Amino acid sequence: MGARGAGLWADGEDAAVERLRSRTPLFGAGRAHLNHAGASPMDQSVIDVVEAHQRLEHEIGGYESAAEADAQLEAGRAALAGCIGAESKEIAYVESATAAYAGALSAFDWQPGDVILMSRFDYASNQIMALSLRRRRQVRLVRADDLPEGGVDPESVRTLIQAHRPKLVSMTHMPTSTGMIQDIEAVGRICSEFEVPYLVDACQTVGQMPIDVAAIHCDFLAATGRKYLRGPRGTGLLFVAERMLKQEAAPLFVDMRGADWTRDQGYDLRPDARRFELWESNVAARLGLGAAAELALEVGLERIAERSARLAAEVRARARESTFAQPIDVGARQGAIVSLRLLPGADPPPAEVVVLRLRERGVNTSAIDVTSAQLDLEDRAGGSTSALRVSTHVMTTDEEIDRLFEALEDVLD
Amino acid sequence: MGARGAGLWADGEDAAVERLRSRTPLFGAGRAHLNHAGASPMDQSVIDVVEAHQRLEHEIGGYESAAEADAQLEAGRAALAGCIGAESKEIAYVESATAAYAGALSAFDWQPGDVILMSRFDYASNQIMALSLRRRRQVRLVRADDLPEGGVDPESVRTLIQAHRPKLVSMTHMPTSTGMIQDIEAVGRICSEFEVPYLVDACQTVGQMPIDVAAIHCDFLAATGRKYLRGPRGTGLLFVAERMLKQEAAPLFVDMRGADWTRDQGYDLRPDARRFELWESNVAARLGLGAAAELALEVGLERIAERSARLAAEVRARARESTFAQPIDVGARQGAIVSLRLLPGADPPPAEVVVLRLRERGVNTSAIDVTSAQLDLEDRAGGSTSALRVSTHVMTTDEEIDRLFEALEDVLD
Repeated sequence: MGARGAGLWADGEDAAVERLRSRTPLFGAGRAHLNHAGASPMDQSVIDVVEAHQRLEHEIGGYESAAEADAQLEAGRAALAGCIGAESKEIAYVESATAAYAGALSAFDWQPGDVILMSRFDYASNQIMALSLRRRRQVRLVRADDLPEGGVDPESVRTLIQAHRPKLVSMTHMPTSTGMIQDIEAVGRICSEFEVPYLVDACQTVGQMPIDVAAIHCDFLAATGRKYLRGPRGTGLLFVAERMLKQEAAPLFVDMRGADWTRDQGYDLRPDARRFELWESNVAARLGLGAAAELALEVGLERIAERSARLAAEVRARARESTFAQPIDVGARQGAIVSLRLLPGADPPPAEVVVLRLRERGVNTSAIDVTSAQLDLEDRAGGSTSALRVSTHVMTTDEEIDRLFEALEDVLD
Repeated sequence: MGARGAGLWADGEDAAVERLRSRTPLFGAGRAHLNHAGASPMDQSVIDVVEAHQRLEHEIGGYESAAEADAQLEAGRAALAGCIGAESKEIAYVESATAAYAGALSAFDWQPGDVILMSRFDYASNQIMALSLRRRRQVRLVRADDLPEGGVDPESVRTLIQAHRPKLVSMTHMPTSTGMIQDIEAVGRICSEFEVPYLVDACQTVGQMPIDVAAIHCDFLAATGRKYLRGPRGTGLLFVAERMLKQEAAPLFVDMRGADWTRDQGYDLRPDARRFELWESNVAARLGLGAAAELALEVGLERIAERSARLAAEVRARARESTFAQPIDVGARQGAIVSLRLLPGADPPPAEVVVLRLRERGVNTSAIDVTSAQLDLEDRAGGSTSALRVSTHVMTTDEEIDRLFEALEDVLD
């Protein structure tokens, strides 16, 4: 973020972007990648870290190589902490944002009638987990109202906290289905005021923009490795605030990584967030995640946020001028995810099919389906049950956006 | 298992073993590996599968490559099913045996006073999870008695089922701390008779020997990828019996992989065991696990079981003749894990230190600590709080055993 980042950007933005692209095999292979919100391609330096550990595993053994990885894993933990303004001891390596989210949910002893307060824009998997708690434990799921411009209304959160005294408030920073940046800080201040635990899903935003868990006032924050952090698949992180650790917050299914089995047939929790980790893991992938976090800090999260949002705004502007797609993103502030409704005049196939046809033309995008965003998509999409998702990153270029629109015109023509 | 396996063994056992070793980079690097119960080194054919998918991820993208992996993942699932006598639809890919075990535990709605019946030889992490259920949900943990020769006494299980009507019986096939093969079939027949759900931890035995879930009568079976299956780290599998799937057994934290979010704000579970998977995963590692299972079937699980147990027996015999280590394995039947007590006369350092010194000499082993096996180790180890674990596989040779004893003599001298 300091000297190294300054070096990367010393010759101007275009040169920095070109350098980042030249280190990313996917771009060397000639593809346009506008699916960073799905999975963003790894930098060669991250690939090298993963492969070096895998080679060590093959040469000296899985346990024997892991014994040599501790310091590097801790450096990665510090870098992950640095991406969200946390301390290393508050970071657990996990396998996905969903695993992180489940671990955080499992820290509460859900009783019949307990309330979990969410928004209408939460990720489908988070919603299903809350519904599973409802089915299993008769937990009540309450959803806050949206603001007229889209995004959770913090005052609705306040009213519902006063009415229901929820056991947990859970919000998604940026939905999977739109680039809207929800005002999770405002919600956090209210949770803090009422001392209600607060879980944030920042799956799309860690690595996309600077995040400060202190400003958010969150107790837990879940994120994935494969998206804006550009880490390996099957990686994620869970932030657990020091104050929750001190209150003995722990996952329901804690193992010998997270706790010491004691002679009196009890167990002592670890003091840090690693109590949310399981003993076994893909060490190479975790090392890759740490290296990816170091790279994000080197590139600079402010710069990533500014450029990726600027290019996403460009995609929206281009779409608005087109006859075949219109942006349907909502909210007062928007980041690097663009959701496009394919206009009926173009007689478009379902977005999933458009994605495949674009892929054949060397352009990666993804589709949003109503089954994963049913509370918000249909209204926005004018009755359509799917939308095209285009997502940018700091490495995105105007040329890639040109290729997207050329390919879209070709596919929809 | 058929033609290909026959081919491997056509020129006799030594030739087959040599061929397997020549395909394993770790042996090419000159190490003696007697830590298969920790992590067994991958075959080059499995490494190739992992690396090929990683390359595809780097070249075309994480989602785009995953879209091409479905058929291969299904073939791997079929091979995993083949290793345990299950059907593909009963297999979930997960990240470890512990994750599998936690998923199975989470399928039950634990109420205060519910009983979980285990043995004294269960893995520390399994014990801690049961103790966590006790702390959180006031679940009672009851342990069956051992037979005089070691290992769970099925008649004790019967008596305790009649007395306590447990919600779940959970047994470990082969403990982490001794090569004993517990009679999980006898326990399964009793569970079946009383219709008590039965969870088996087969972390050390899947890939080490033929397993038949029908003969075991288990409802769930958890296993890891990195041990006898020789798959990548961070992989595992959960078997969920068809009858449990039909009864809507599901993990507490189900996501959009496991269930479809429905319009009426509920969710529909998938019909198969994939409801125990989360959407995000390390696809390359899962493909590697599938390839490793295919290799295990090709080598032949009967042959793996016979040879690895024979060589483990040889280690025990050699130790008995030595002045510095004695085997402390218990049970009527023993497999590929040997636990050695380092004799006081040799004035040995703790086993963890011996492991490091052996490793410096190119010999991989591992240590068992009383914190992970406190219910059984101290008695067996004559008051010692640690023991050396030596574990063989089908690729193990007499020469490796020679190297172990030479290095041990060197270290303890």
